[in-house]
Amino acid sequence: MKMVGVMGAGDCNGEIYEQARKVGAGIAKAGGILVCGGLGGVMEGACQGAYEAGGQTVGILPGPDRTHANPYVTIPIVTDLGHARNVLVVRSSDILVAIAGGYGTLSEISIALKLGRPVIGLHTWPNMEGIQYVETAEKALDTVLALVYETI
Amino acid sequence: MKMVGVMGAGDCNGEIYEQARKVGAGIAKAGGILVCGGLGGVMEGACQGAYEAGGQTVGILPGPDRTHANPYVTIPIVTDLGHARNVLVVRSSDILVAIAGGYGTLSEISIALKLGRPVIGLHTWPNMEGIQYVETAEKALDTVLALVYETI
Amino acid sequence: MKMVGVMGAGDCNGEIYEQARKVGAGIAKAGGILVCGGLGGVMEGACQGAYEAGGQTVGILPGPDRTHANPYVTIPIVTDLGHARNVLVVRSSDILVAIAGGYGTLSEISIALKLGRPVIGLHTWPNMEGIQYVETAEKALDTVLALVYETI
Amino acid sequence: MKMVGVMGAGDCNGEIYEQARKVGAGIAKAGGILVCGGLGGVMEGACQGAYEAGGQTVGILPGPDRTHANPYVTIPIVTDLGHARNVLVVRSSDILVAIAGGYGTLSEISIALKLGRPVIGLHTWPNMEGIQYVETAEKALDTVLALVYETI
Repeated sequence: MKMVGVMGAGDCNGEIYEQARKVGAGIAKAGGILVCGGLGGVMEGACQGAYEAGGQTVGILPGPDRTHANPYVTIPIVTDLGHARNVLVVRSSDILVAIAGGYGTLSEISIALKLGRPVIGLHTWPNMEGIQYVETAEKALDTVLALVYETI
Repeated sequence: MKMVGVMGAGDCNGEIYEQARKVGAGIAKAGGILVCGGLGGVMEGACQGAYEAGGQTVGILPGPDRTHANPYVTIPIVTDLGHARNVLVVRSSDILVAIAGGYGTLSEISIALKLGRPVIGLHTWPNMEGIQYVETAEKALDTVLALVYETI
Repeated sequence: MKMVGVMGAGDCNGEIYEQARKVGAGIAKAGGILVCGGLGGVMEGACQGAYEAGGQTVGILPGPDRTHANPYVTIPIVTDLGHARNVLVVRSSDILVAIAGGYGTLSEISIALKLGRPVIGLHTWPNMEGIQYVETAEKALDTVLALVYETI
Repeated sequence: MKMVGVMGAGDCNGEIYEQARKVGAGIAKAGGILVCGGLGGVMEGACQGAYEAGGQTVGILPGPDRTHANPYVTIPIVTDLGHARNVLVVRSSDILVAIAGGYGTLSEISIALKLGRPVIGLHTWPNMEGIQYVETAEKALDTVLALVYETI
C-alpha cells in the first residue's frame, strides 16, 4: 500500500488548484491512497483529482466534525486536534508533495524532513535542503512514482 | 458514507475474536467503513471480517509507524499520539460497537457517550446508561443498521 | 516534585465544589503541584483551594486559548486538543483524585487505571476495581499523602 | 502572567547553550514563566538560566513519562504526543524566542507565525518574514520585554 500525502494551503488560485488536481489524479491512477488535511484549496484540488480518477482520499481534519471536509474526501478522519493534526498527515504518508502553501504547509514540510520522509516541492517554500523541487505536476508525479517504487 | 467504529482490547480470546469478525463482516457487507484502533485482538477480528467481506478498514494507530497495524488494515492512520488517539476513533465514527474490552475500551466508551454517539455493547462494561446492550454479533449488527439508516 | 491530578466535571454543586477546594488546599499545603483540566466546577474548586494556599495550579486546557481557564490557574497549558487533553492530565500526574464527575471524568479514570496511576475516588463512578474510594476530602488527602510518600 | 516560549534543538554547542541560558535567566528575572519542550540543548540551557534565577520552567515533553526532562524543568507536562506537542509549546506562549534549531524548531516557528505569535530569532532559520531577528541574547530579551509590556 502506498500512502501519498499532499500538503498545501486551504486557499489557492485556480492554477495551483489545477496542479493539485493533476497530482491527485496521478496518485490515484498509480494505485496510491491520497492523504491530506481534508480542507479546501490545494487539499480539495488533490482530492478532486484522485476522486475523479476513482481513488481513495483520506482527509485528516483539524475540527471536531466533518463539516469542513471538502466534498471529495472519501475517508474523513475527525481529529479535533487543530494544527497538531499536521503531524498525522505526515506520519501517515510514505512520501509527500508540497504544493505552494503558507506557514501551515511549512510546518508540515518541517516535520516531514525531520522524520526523513521524501518531500517533492512544487511552487512551494524555496531553498530548503531536503526538498526535491520540480516545476510541473507531471514532474512531481514522475518523482513520486520513482521514489515509491524504489523505496517502499 | 457510514463510518462504524469497533472498540475492544488488543488481546482477546477466540470466541470474542469471532464475534468481532462477524461484526466487521456485517459492517462491510452493509457498505460501511470500519474504524478502529488498528491493533490486534478485537480490532484485528473486526478488520479481518470487514477485509474478507471486501470492505475498507481504517486503523487509527497509537504508535509512530505502521509496525503494529494488524494485517487487515487497509487505511492505516499513523498518529504517534498514544492513548489520545482513542478520541479520534470515536470522533471519526458515526456509531460505535464496544466488544468486551478493558480500561482503554472504557475510555473510548466514555468519550463516545460524552459526544452523544450511539454505542452498542456486546459483552462489554455493564450497567452503563447510554449503552444499548446486545447479546450476539447479529443483534449488534441489526442495531447498528437500524440506527444508521434512521439517523445518518 | 509531586504532581497531583484532580479530575471532575466542569459543572458541580456547591458541596462538591467545597470538597474539591479542600482537596486542592491540602495538595498545596503538602507541597504538591495541582494538575487539572483548567476549567470550572471541580477543576475550579481544586484550583481555588490550592491557589489560596499559595500553591501552583496547572490547567491543561482543551481550547485554543486561555479564555476558559478558571481564574485560579497559575500555569495555563493551551492544547487545542479537545478531549484528547484528558490523557495529558493523567500522564502529567503522579496520583489522581476523582471527585464526582461524568463521562469526561470516567475517560480520565479509565486512562489513569490503564496506565497504573493510583486513583482516589470521592463521590465518583462507583464499583470500579482499582479506585480507592473515600468518603471525605480529608480522607482523600490522607490517602494521597500516604501514597505519595510511599511511592514517589 | 507572561508565558515566554523558547524553541531550539535538543542538541547544541556550548555557545548556543550559553545564549539560551542568558535568555532563560532574563525571562525569569522579568517575572515570566519559561515554556519549552523540556528536553536538552537549547531547551535545557533556557531552563537552567531560568531555574538559577528562581523562575518557573514548564517543559512540555514529547514522551510518555518524565525520563527525558532536563533537570531544570520545574513543571513537567507529559504528553506522549511526539512532535505534535510542538503546537502546545507555541499555543501556551504569549511570545517566543527561536534560538538556532533544526526542522523541529522550524515547525514551531511556522505554527507560531501561523497563529500570529511574535517570534524573536537568534541565530536561527534566516530570511523569514515575521521573525524579528536579533544578534545577541540581550537584544532578544529587550525585544521580548518591549513586546510583552506593549501587547499582553
